Amino acid sequence: MGEPNWDKLCNTVIRIGIMGYGNLGRGAELAVAKCDDMELRCIFTRRDPSKIIPVTKGIKVCAAVEAQCFAEEIDVMLMCGGSAIDLPVQTPEFARLFNVVDSYDTHAKISEHYAKTDIAAKAGGKTAIISVGWDPGLFSLNRLMAESMLPSGSSYTFWGEGVSQGHTDAIKNIDGVSDARQYTIPVQSALEAVRKGEDPELTTRQKHRRMCYVAVKEGADYADIENKIITMPDYFADYDTTVSFVSTEELLENHSGLPHGGFVIRSGKTGCCNEHKQIAEFSINLDSNPEFTASVLVAYARAAYRLNTEGITGCKTVFDIPPAYLSQESKDELIKKYL
Amino acid sequence: MGEPNWDKLCNTVIRIGIMGYGNLGRGAELAVAKCDDMELRCIFTRRDPSKIIPVTKGIKVCAAVEAQCFAEEIDVMLMCGGSAIDLPVQTPEFARLFNVVDSYDTHAKISEHYAKTDIAAKAGGKTAIISVGWDPGLFSLNRLMAESMLPSGSSYTFWGEGVSQGHTDAIKNIDGVSDARQYTIPVQSALEAVRKGEDPELTTRQKHRRMCYVAVKEGADYADIENKIITMPDYFADYDTTVSFVSTEELLENHSGLPHGGFVIRSGKTGCCNEHKQIAEFSINLDSNPEFTASVLVAYARAAYRLNTEGITGCKTVFDIPPAYLSQESKDELIKKYL
Repeated sequence: MGEPNWDKLCNTVIRIGIMGYGNLGRGAELAVAKCDDMELRCIFTRRDPSKIIPVTKGIKVCAAVEAQCFAEEIDVMLMCGGSAIDLPVQTPEFARLFNVVDSYDTHAKISEHYAKTDIAAKAGGKTAIISVGWDPGLFSLNRLMAESMLPSGSSYTFWGEGVSQGHTDAIKNIDGVSDARQYTIPVQSALEAVRKGEDPELTTRQKHRRMCYVAVKEGADYADIENKIITMPDYFADYDTTVSFVSTEELLENHSGLPHGGFVIRSGKTGCCNEHKQIAEFSINLDSNPEFTASVLVAYARAAYRLNTEGITGCKTVFDIPPAYLSQESKDELIKKYL
Repeated sequence: MGEPNWDKLCNTVIRIGIMGYGNLGRGAELAVAKCDDMELRCIFTRRDPSKIIPVTKGIKVCAAVEAQCFAEEIDVMLMCGGSAIDLPVQTPEFARLFNVVDSYDTHAKISEHYAKTDIAAKAGGKTAIISVGWDPGLFSLNRLMAESMLPSGSSYTFWGEGVSQGHTDAIKNIDGVSDARQYTIPVQSALEAVRKGEDPELTTRQKHRRMCYVAVKEGADYADIENKIITMPDYFADYDTTVSFVSTEELLENHSGLPHGGFVIRSGKTGCCNEHKQIAEFSINLDSNPEFTASVLVAYARAAYRLNTEGITGCKTVFDIPPAYLSQESKDELIKKYL
């Protein structure tokens, strides 16, 4: 914070690298292209680079193992791997050489990931921002801010309507299933009760329902598959789950997108006797979950670069970042345009 | 930023003063009472202090001119005056002696207010955060963040449904009017079109309508008053305005609250050809506008105190504040609880 050199910061082109080229990496490529102050230098992949065809013509693709040779050439590396296997290893590893931003989303293990990345980033004099995206990320920010402002009250997070990758994969792993798509859907009546400030206590089942579209292999036992889904512990047993069997073609035609969304609602109370209801809500409705998450990563990449320029190193989260650092605009412009 | 001493910061009691005891000041008194880490030291008023009865028993009330004697005893002064006359003078004046937070909301003059307050706060080694509340404030933050993440798209702000003090006063100034209350109401169909990502171009009339409840003096000319309202330039002429004449009793009984609310919506586009709609929305629905605004001020008072403790002085806005500074929780707790 203090007094950043805004003129300099707002007139620099930030050189970006992308590590991992799945849905998120592709989204990052597109998001960087929308920023005048950024330039995509290279995409890194663990697959054969010659097999990768970036959306934008002329973008360089290199093997992940070559990344270290680019340490002087890339200002921020966008870590676009998965949270289960890739990021716990890659983010600390890359944070020694690059400023990095990742979307690590295993909530229970964020503190551990933070600690490892902090050590690595400090050792390398780099700046890392972890767990960036919408949840964790923007939703976390809204939870923190709303509770800080309205200490009396209840907080609610609803997810959906959207595709849950983890639940989709759980269905795909059932014998006889050839393909699937699972939608998480917030229960509308619960959402409305929360918005009215009724502060309901909601069970898992009362908050979300699950809709599964399933294509099966020839000769599969429909009843058995349905039963295996709706009784699956953790994933489906605690929810009202609907299973709909469809053809592979229908799945491709109507369910190939990756929409998602959600709601963070603080139902606060103020006044001498908590007589005033004060509701704050943040919601998103996304046609493409990975493209939105990537767009958030890219804005925080700007912040990571700026912090590092100011000599602030180590691991950060969205909670540590002054919002001005996310924008391309100068401080004066921000006041005129947004305040 | 850097490495604040979180343990120390989270275990300090912040001593608060309130300058001005109208609706906002009263809201601030109640909001401070909800924070374990704050203590209200004194309310300052330009009225006769003996005539002021705080909501909480035992709270000290002093004359505004005595405030300077409290410079050593108050960590943050909440400036609870009005933007038209009070704050442009008081905030810079007090920022020489105290860390201050204000809700200055004359959008066109914020840069000027910022510059004056910055000079004063720096001269006094104090930290000021100006234009805190919901608009300017939380809405500004959402506009900035959403546009930084979704650079392609359109932004919309709707206000209401709620009481506009300025428009209410404009009606009260008409000859023959004894009392009034004006509600600003967003046009639902416009809101829905924006939420669907249709990116409509909306005129003033298409975004909001105005509902006026008016009590008149004996012998007043109803038709003349109605005409004066609906044709009033700037305030009503550009809107669909409904005037409803009611008794003073009805006004008191049904329209004495100060509810408000609003919506900030970013309708963004991502993808190779902007083919994906990405909607982010922040909204509030408030039973008491002054109590909510005061609650926001109080959270930012925590940030002002912490920044000052770290030696960061001068004028700041919500754009400069890392969200973690708003919360009472330690950094570890924030990650566990909210991320």
